[in-house]
Amino acid sequence: MEYLDKLLNGDKRTCARLISIIENDEEEAKNIIKNIYKYTGNAHVIGITGPPGGGKSTLTDKLTKELRKKGKTVGIVAIDPTSPFSGGAILGDRIRMQDLATDSGVFIRSMGTRGHLGGLSKATQSAVKILDVYGADYIIIETVGVGQSEIDIVKNADTVVMVMVPGLGDDIQAIKAGVMEIGDIFAINKSDLDGAARTAAEVKAMLDMGPRKDRRPPIVQVVASLNRDVDVLLDEIIKHMEYLKSSGELKKRRKANIRTEIIKLVETEVMRMVLQKSQSDQALEKVTSEVVDRNTDPFSASESIMKLFSNNI
Amino acid sequence: MEYLDKLLNGDKRTCARLISIIENDEEEAKNIIKNIYKYTGNAHVIGITGPPGGGKSTLTDKLTKELRKKGKTVGIVAIDPTSPFSGGAILGDRIRMQDLATDSGVFIRSMGTRGHLGGLSKATQSAVKILDVYGADYIIIETVGVGQSEIDIVKNADTVVMVMVPGLGDDIQAIKAGVMEIGDIFAINKSDLDGAARTAAEVKAMLDMGPRKDRRPPIVQVVASLNRDVDVLLDEIIKHMEYLKSSGELKKRRKANIRTEIIKLVETEVMRMVLQKSQSDQALEKVTSEVVDRNTDPFSASESIMKLFSNNI
Repeated sequence: MEYLDKLLNGDKRTCARLISIIENDEEEAKNIIKNIYKYTGNAHVIGITGPPGGGKSTLTDKLTKELRKKGKTVGIVAIDPTSPFSGGAILGDRIRMQDLATDSGVFIRSMGTRGHLGGLSKATQSAVKILDVYGADYIIIETVGVGQSEIDIVKNADTVVMVMVPGLGDDIQAIKAGVMEIGDIFAINKSDLDGAARTAAEVKAMLDMGPRKDRRPPIVQVVASLNRDVDVLLDEIIKHMEYLKSSGELKKRRKANIRTEIIKLVETEVMRMVLQKSQSDQALEKVTSEVVDRNTDPFSASESIMKLFSNNI
Repeated sequence: MEYLDKLLNGDKRTCARLISIIENDEEEAKNIIKNIYKYTGNAHVIGITGPPGGGKSTLTDKLTKELRKKGKTVGIVAIDPTSPFSGGAILGDRIRMQDLATDSGVFIRSMGTRGHLGGLSKATQSAVKILDVYGADYIIIETVGVGQSEIDIVKNADTVVMVMVPGLGDDIQAIKAGVMEIGDIFAINKSDLDGAARTAAEVKAMLDMGPRKDRRPPIVQVVASLNRDVDVLLDEIIKHMEYLKSSGELKKRRKANIRTEIIKLVETEVMRMVLQKSQSDQALEKVTSEVVDRNTDPFSASESIMKLFSNNI
C-alpha cells in the first residue's frame, strides 16, 4: 500500500487518484477504505445545504478563504447534479472557486449525482475519508437542493449549515420545515436583500416551536458575495465543534452515523443479491407480466419473489 | 369486502377512509391493494414537479378546473413536506384549493413526507390506485422539490409536467439538467415575468442537446395565477396520452413502472428482515462499536453482518 504512505504525507496527486478510484471502481473502493480507515476521524466535517439559489458555492468559497487565513487546510466535496446528456458533472458554479484550485492548502472535488453504483452518499463518505487521511483540517460537503438524498449526504457531517435566502417564494416555508431539524447553524445569505430580517425571524419562530434542546442553533446573517460576516459564521462553526466535544455529542453523533453507514452497506449488498437472483431466474419478468395483465397485484408478486429468494439463498 | 363495492360506486367517504388506512396500516394497505388491484389502470396519471417557487399548486388548481369544464373527475395527491415539530403535513398552499374541496367531482388528499413506514413513494402509489378505482378520470400527483425522492414519486405518472419559472437563480440550470429527462411536457409558469422567453429558450437548448427521440417534449408558457394558457397545457397533456397509446409507449412505460414497483417492495421486505435480524442479535451494536474504536472499518463490519444474515435465514 504505497498509496497509504503518500496519502498520509499529504500527496495531492495520490489523493485525487484515490477519489477517482472510489468513484469508478466499487471493489477497489472497498479495499482503499479498509486500508485507510484507522487513520480517519481527525477532520471537522461541515455540511452546507439549503434550497437552490442560496449562494452556497460562494459561501463555501468564502468560508474556505477564512479558514486559510487561520492556516487551516480545507477539502471540498461539491455535489453537482449530473447532466443527463453528457453524463458529466455540471461545473457552472465551481468556476468561481478557480482561485482556490491553485492554493496548495485546498483540495476541491466535484462529484456528479449519477453513476455511483453504490450510491452517491457512499461515494461522498469515502471521499471524505480520503480527504481526512490526506490531512485536511476541515472538509466541506456542499450539496445543491433539499431532497432526501441531499439530507442523507449532509447529515453525516459534524456540523450542518443550512443556508437560507430572503424571498424564495411560497414553497420555502414548507421546505424549511422539512429540513429544519438537521441544521446546526442557520446562515441567512444575501442578507443585504429586502426581507432578510423577516427570513431570520421566520427561522427563529420555527426553532421556538420545536422541542427544547440542550443547544439552540444560532442564526447568522451573512452576505457571502461581499464577504460580510462570513467570519462570524466560521466562529459559530468552530464553537459548534467545541460544544460537540465538551458535551459528548460528537462521539454519539459519529457513532450513530457509523451505525447508519453499516446498515446502508448491508442494504446495498442484500439488494444486489436479490436483484441478481430475480434477474437470473427471470421470475421477475414473469410476475411483472402477470401484474400487467392484472392476474395478480404488485404485493402478491413481491411476495412470490421473496419466497424464491429465501428458498434459494 | 363491502368497501370495494362502495369504492367502485364512487363513494367519497370510502375513498378517504381507504387512503387513511393505507397511510397508517401497512398490513391492511397490502390487503386493500390486493383486493382492488384488478380494477386499476383506467385513470390518466399526471405528475407535476419542479423547483420550489414554481407555483405548482396554483397550476394544479387551474388544470383541475379546466378538466372539470370538460366534465372529467379529478383526484389530487399533493405531497407536502412534513413539519418536523407537529408531524403533520403543512397545508399552506392547499388553502388556495379550498373551492375545489366542495366540488363533488374532485378529490384532494395531502400526504406528508414522513411517517410512511414503507416509504412515501409506496403510499402515493397506493393512494393513486384507490383514486383510480374510485373512478377519477385524471389523477394529479403534485410534489414540492426536485430531489431524488420527488423524481421517484412522479416518474410513476403517465405524463410528467416539469414546471419552470423565470429567474430562479444560478442553481436552476443545474437542477434542470438533473431532472430534465423525466419531463414529458415543460410548463414555463409565471410567463408574464421578465426572462420567461429566456427560460423557454434554455429549456429548448437543453432538449436540442439531448438524444433524438420519437417525441419531443413541448414547451408551454403559462400564467397559472391568471389562468392564461392553462387550456393549452391541458391540450398538450391530453395529446401526450394519445401519443402514449398510439405508439405503444403507454404499455411499455406502465410495465417498466410495475417492474420497479415490485423490486421496491422486495427491497423493503428484505431490508426489514435484515434490520430485524441485525437488531435482534445485537451484532450491529457490536460491530458499530468496533468501527467507532477503529478496530475495524464499515465495509468489513457490513460483511460480517451479511455473513450472519446468510447463515441464519
